[in-house]
Amino acid sequence: MLDFCCDYKNGAHPAVLARLAETNSQTTGTYGFDEYSDAAKEKIKAACKAKDADVFFIAGGTQTNMTVISSCLQPYEGVVAASTGHINCHEAGAVEHSGYKVLALPHHDGKVDANELEAYLKDFEENPSRDHMVFPAMLYISYPTEYGTIYKKEELSDLRRVCDKYGLTVFLDGARLGYGLTSPECDIDLPFLAGICDVFYIGGTKVGALCGEAVVFPKGAPAHFITMVKQRGAMLAKSRVLGVQFDALFTDGLYFKIAKNGIDRAYELKAAFERKGYKFYIDSPTNQQFIVLDEKTLARLEKKVNFEVWEKTADGCTVVRFATSWSTTKEEITELYKLL
Amino acid sequence: MLDFCCDYKNGAHPAVLARLAETNSQTTGTYGFDEYSDAAKEKIKAACKAKDADVFFIAGGTQTNMTVISSCLQPYEGVVAASTGHINCHEAGAVEHSGYKVLALPHHDGKVDANELEAYLKDFEENPSRDHMVFPAMLYISYPTEYGTIYKKEELSDLRRVCDKYGLTVFLDGARLGYGLTSPECDIDLPFLAGICDVFYIGGTKVGALCGEAVVFPKGAPAHFITMVKQRGAMLAKSRVLGVQFDALFTDGLYFKIAKNGIDRAYELKAAFERKGYKFYIDSPTNQQFIVLDEKTLARLEKKVNFEVWEKTADGCTVVRFATSWSTTKEEITELYKLL
Amino acid sequence: MLDFCCDYKNGAHPAVLARLAETNSQTTGTYGFDEYSDAAKEKIKAACKAKDADVFFIAGGTQTNMTVISSCLQPYEGVVAASTGHINCHEAGAVEHSGYKVLALPHHDGKVDANELEAYLKDFEENPSRDHMVFPAMLYISYPTEYGTIYKKEELSDLRRVCDKYGLTVFLDGARLGYGLTSPECDIDLPFLAGICDVFYIGGTKVGALCGEAVVFPKGAPAHFITMVKQRGAMLAKSRVLGVQFDALFTDGLYFKIAKNGIDRAYELKAAFERKGYKFYIDSPTNQQFIVLDEKTLARLEKKVNFEVWEKTADGCTVVRFATSWSTTKEEITELYKLL
Amino acid sequence: MLDFCCDYKNGAHPAVLARLAETNSQTTGTYGFDEYSDAAKEKIKAACKAKDADVFFIAGGTQTNMTVISSCLQPYEGVVAASTGHINCHEAGAVEHSGYKVLALPHHDGKVDANELEAYLKDFEENPSRDHMVFPAMLYISYPTEYGTIYKKEELSDLRRVCDKYGLTVFLDGARLGYGLTSPECDIDLPFLAGICDVFYIGGTKVGALCGEAVVFPKGAPAHFITMVKQRGAMLAKSRVLGVQFDALFTDGLYFKIAKNGIDRAYELKAAFERKGYKFYIDSPTNQQFIVLDEKTLARLEKKVNFEVWEKTADGCTVVRFATSWSTTKEEITELYKLL
Repeated sequence: MLDFCCDYKNGAHPAVLARLAETNSQTTGTYGFDEYSDAAKEKIKAACKAKDADVFFIAGGTQTNMTVISSCLQPYEGVVAASTGHINCHEAGAVEHSGYKVLALPHHDGKVDANELEAYLKDFEENPSRDHMVFPAMLYISYPTEYGTIYKKEELSDLRRVCDKYGLTVFLDGARLGYGLTSPECDIDLPFLAGICDVFYIGGTKVGALCGEAVVFPKGAPAHFITMVKQRGAMLAKSRVLGVQFDALFTDGLYFKIAKNGIDRAYELKAAFERKGYKFYIDSPTNQQFIVLDEKTLARLEKKVNFEVWEKTADGCTVVRFATSWSTTKEEITELYKLL
Repeated sequence: MLDFCCDYKNGAHPAVLARLAETNSQTTGTYGFDEYSDAAKEKIKAACKAKDADVFFIAGGTQTNMTVISSCLQPYEGVVAASTGHINCHEAGAVEHSGYKVLALPHHDGKVDANELEAYLKDFEENPSRDHMVFPAMLYISYPTEYGTIYKKEELSDLRRVCDKYGLTVFLDGARLGYGLTSPECDIDLPFLAGICDVFYIGGTKVGALCGEAVVFPKGAPAHFITMVKQRGAMLAKSRVLGVQFDALFTDGLYFKIAKNGIDRAYELKAAFERKGYKFYIDSPTNQQFIVLDEKTLARLEKKVNFEVWEKTADGCTVVRFATSWSTTKEEITELYKLL
Repeated sequence: MLDFCCDYKNGAHPAVLARLAETNSQTTGTYGFDEYSDAAKEKIKAACKAKDADVFFIAGGTQTNMTVISSCLQPYEGVVAASTGHINCHEAGAVEHSGYKVLALPHHDGKVDANELEAYLKDFEENPSRDHMVFPAMLYISYPTEYGTIYKKEELSDLRRVCDKYGLTVFLDGARLGYGLTSPECDIDLPFLAGICDVFYIGGTKVGALCGEAVVFPKGAPAHFITMVKQRGAMLAKSRVLGVQFDALFTDGLYFKIAKNGIDRAYELKAAFERKGYKFYIDSPTNQQFIVLDEKTLARLEKKVNFEVWEKTADGCTVVRFATSWSTTKEEITELYKLL
Repeated sequence: MLDFCCDYKNGAHPAVLARLAETNSQTTGTYGFDEYSDAAKEKIKAACKAKDADVFFIAGGTQTNMTVISSCLQPYEGVVAASTGHINCHEAGAVEHSGYKVLALPHHDGKVDANELEAYLKDFEENPSRDHMVFPAMLYISYPTEYGTIYKKEELSDLRRVCDKYGLTVFLDGARLGYGLTSPECDIDLPFLAGICDVFYIGGTKVGALCGEAVVFPKGAPAHFITMVKQRGAMLAKSRVLGVQFDALFTDGLYFKIAKNGIDRAYELKAAFERKGYKFYIDSPTNQQFIVLDEKTLARLEKKVNFEVWEKTADGCTVVRFATSWSTTKEEITELYKLL
């Protein structure tokens, strides 16, 4: 059966797996101090044009969000996010379990609006009860968002300006960063992100790795970050497993090449649905496409293809998600088209 | 200067203080096991007609909310509250600091709507990703709410029914319970609350005590609750301090008599503002009154009387709060009227 | 029945209670910003000769320990304490519940030894695995200790020197500070403590108050400490309750006068036991006296006088604690003597 | 250079890697619900003769300890461990960061003694202050221990009996379980462990996997364990990565075969040191060998072979650890012998 459920249903990109095999019998350092992690860090710093950056590899996304957020905030601080942000919805309360409040703002197709953020921060600053409230101290945004949308360069610059004005750090969740940066609508790149974020991560799990996310602190990490990584259980003993994979992904631009495949297939998929007259829930320029299905079509399609049910609409239809990935083939899109 | 800022700016009701003085030289038990705490617990159980209840005294409201919520929830669970709920706004993230998420619903003059709650719980139950989400397991409501409003008996019964259907416990924050139960609009009483709540507290700090809240678990407390109270730092060594005060408050109905004074003065204050043509932000039947002031009136009044600035309106006016209490006098209302 | 169980079984010192009564009908500020708290803070700063100090009032000891420790440590840090330290034994895991490890060192009659501390810190510093360990960052000591003993000035200076060398802050738990500072064996005073500690507290609950501890940060508190106090549920709305009491205790040296009564009675009690040939478990110069009782004497005494059972000895005897306090009378000691 | 530093410096066993490669292009379920995880779970349940068991795969050891412990304990409970237990020493306070106290008992070559455990639990039960203390509720033991030693069947049965008597659950950390179960001194097997533990884990990272530990709850897991796994950041999206590896390890007894290689090499290494007259710090029957080196020998050896410095002895010698593993070859032992 065709499967467009998500972008982490296959193994690793063959080149990544090959690199794991090639290096398998070597003896290396551990706990982040292995030569492959070192090499991968250098390649990522070069790709970001951020020579003072600190880079760390962590096995998964929720773990990364939880570790970064709880390591950067003071106890009296919280993290601002869109109501639809992954940390606010689908991480089982990992941020709160670590002791921190997610301060949710309304979302606009998954995005935070700079003016609304500024109004919120101004209100907080002027609130006579603010010492009894959680201090907004970090902005969490996803790129692409949970709805597949991406911020324009100007939107990101506006958010940064507001954060600077009110003293917030900026953390960008790049679980699907590759699919954002290779979208035809994208007007930014890694060096831009490194310039605008205090910390962000480059997602590997969804872009060709077996597992792994690369956390980048362009201006340097908090003191003793690795001890906090250990404390949150987020340090792999055999750290080479992540190092080797990111070394492969950042050799000869592999990461972007394979992400681009996900985007090319997504645009073909989008065109397929359009041609067949389907209605889109949102206009997504990345590898997640949200389609509105009536009951009958839903029933018909789910017998032949796997996709994810997202939410119900007021009029009884269902929003579903079709995701392409680095491993999606042109053939799969052709087959899908026949089924629509 | 006249002061209507809040209901905790004076000491204790004279009868409460007298009881502290009378018992001062006695030697008593400690850590909750003193004879005055015992007596007060019996009186509260009798007032609630809840003979199987467990009652505990805790010094303050935030402490009570934090201790109760974090003692009743499993790690994967969260507490549902109105977006305006005290735990969601003005407790500096105490619930999240304890590891739990506040799941905010829209408020209606400070209240949670049973239909909206049901829709939210149904959505959660049907959500295919629910194992990646925080499980709604407790409903937190305030009575009166942070806007001074109170739930009707029917509204509370509806909330209880929804909570039963979806397996939530009900926790009622009664920081100002006396002012709710003595409002002319109130159609419930303590035994009704004991029947409908899994846990609630009877606020003392704002109703005549120096400090202290009485937590009531009508069907019994969680195992080892006192150890969790100790762990959260919420156990007073000299527990008699709280026991003596609640013993006094629940002797001869003192708690309700003095709360009623707050309500009587609130209605006089309300009438005073009405007669002078002021606009109310909300129609509150309890001791907190929310008035909308234009800039000029605000500037004029704040020179002569203390009140709390609540929030700005879209058209540049200011919502302010005037609170009466057990200690407010008729004379103070008369003086205020002259200033309006 | 005579009662020497502990030093918090009576109400407040009459002068403290009188001050609460005198000020009861006044209208004051709240949440720490009332005139009595302000006055008490000034008096405490003067008594400590620490004009740059920040002073806060918190209702109880466990709450104070938990709030101070969790507000001062980074997530990767822990607090070093004697194995017998109150935070390590009798606070139900409040420090760990806040997320921090208590790093226990062997005790010597309740005290930490500076050489052992230095050896421990040196070992940590040289440990190649230290990034996988909890960083010792604060020293917690009690004065008097849980065994009634007190540190000599030189011992405290040695501890401070070691802490400076290894970058630890010093936190002194003064739940019974009055009884330490008025002991004939004491060679320090409040200004000395203010010079040697980063933070300490002056216990009120056990020295004449209904409740309340005064936290002193001689060099200033961590940023936004009051928000962290609020978050831990440790902020009283009616803060005057603590302010008025400490204002009374620090007027005309009342705190020390009444503590001295506890010490004078303790020495009489000590003499009484000595004259009757009882064996002491420890040589305590403060208000807690630890006596070793054989089974028969234990059975005989516990019918006539209340005291606390501490621990069993290897040879089947029982260590018990007799505590005097600010309220113990000469008559009580005389009566006790007759019973021994 | 020869390397005996630890047992996680190589990649995966070739058969494990081969299985990852073979299955790489397949599309599978996610978040623990993939067919390889399912198959691996069945094989582990069969190997444990525990058909009612719940099995989960988690990426690393600290993560597993933290997730299991914090999911099984109530807030007022703590976990008892040897002072040398990994959770007490080398996990950066992960258990405390989750809110729980590690209650350390003296160790005997890394082991907990059942009589000492019983004495400790009896003392707790009889302690009149126990409601102010952390309740011992789980026993954590390692097999093999951090010193390479293993418990005899009778010792484990005694510990279980004591835990039953006092109501503790038993959690066994099997990070190196393979090296324990294939030791010539071992008198237990997986079914015995499944009978005696409430939860234990079978370590993969140190026994042939790239990463991964298999957590086994023989009588079933706590409710909603997977949500708690997610909340602690311990759930891999691409769960097949762990499933495939454990499927390979538990096919045709591979796990035990390769662990046995580590043991065989360890005994050869032991014999080599013995023949050369080296002194052992501890008599270890597993893959970690602890040797005492004088300063000169240390200086000489560390130029030619990697090993881990463990601790200093009182007389200025150094305890070092040599670890063999599934990948150590006879040739490496022969080369090492020449260097000694």
